[in-house]
Amino acid sequence: MLEDLEKKLYSEIPLTKYMQLKFTSVDEKKLISTAPLTPNINDKGTAFAGSLSTLVTISAWSACYLTVKELAYENAMIAVIKSDTAYRAPVTNTLYCETTLPTEDEINILKNKLINKKSASIKINSKIFQDDTLCVEFKGVYVIKV
Amino acid sequence: MLEDLEKKLYSEIPLTKYMQLKFTSVDEKKLISTAPLTPNINDKGTAFAGSLSTLVTISAWSACYLTVKELAYENAMIAVIKSDTAYRAPVTNTLYCETTLPTEDEINILKNKLINKKSASIKINSKIFQDDTLCVEFKGVYVIKV
Repeated sequence: MLEDLEKKLYSEIPLTKYMQLKFTSVDEKKLISTAPLTPNINDKGTAFAGSLSTLVTISAWSACYLTVKELAYENAMIAVIKSDTAYRAPVTNTLYCETTLPTEDEINILKNKLINKKSASIKINSKIFQDDTLCVEFKGVYVIKV
Repeated sequence: MLEDLEKKLYSEIPLTKYMQLKFTSVDEKKLISTAPLTPNINDKGTAFAGSLSTLVTISAWSACYLTVKELAYENAMIAVIKSDTAYRAPVTNTLYCETTLPTEDEINILKNKLINKKSASIKINSKIFQDDTLCVEFKGVYVIKV
């Protein structure tokens, strides 16, 4: 499933391929994504804010994508409409991102809205860590139309 | 000046080169930057949110860079610490970004802080338009250390 998503992103969003974005695991609670430092480096030798922002934004989008796919909607339109990002510490190694998947309650609300209104919005949180340090904190709102 | 900045970014931040980011003009009020759609496209055939976010983040960073350079500080450390982004409409053509440069009052405050504390933070706004439509609205807070 993650390999298919990676292929889809690489073929449809060239920037994700350039960044060498990878999805390494997913369970019921979290989606883990990574990117190497080299293509994402900045003038300070740390991870570029643009790359960090892109990684959290597309990872949270992917959390929506996987959720909607589980609900058996193919070809849903998913787009970020708003995001807040705090850059708390520099990233000096591989970019490691944890995205919180929607809870069962959130999925049920989403499901009902998609059935009744063909449209819903959902909040997704994504964080970039280095070892135990929280480096980037992202809160995004995504709209989904089916 | 803009050519030097472009060269600096291309050599130090490879993602900006991949995105083909360009600075097209600067006056006392605004810095204009652009990027072509092709390397920045998404699954919907519009500009990728990651590219839009990167364009506003680095353009606002560049506004700080040019301001600090005018104050004759070389090698200042400039980094984004916080940002809010609203994605209001899709971008279907060249990404066109207007970044508001600090006012004379803001520059004076910044100058005094840098003299007295060697450190300051500044808010920068950046917007992406397509024709007359506001597509992306970004508010960033940047820290500067000299």
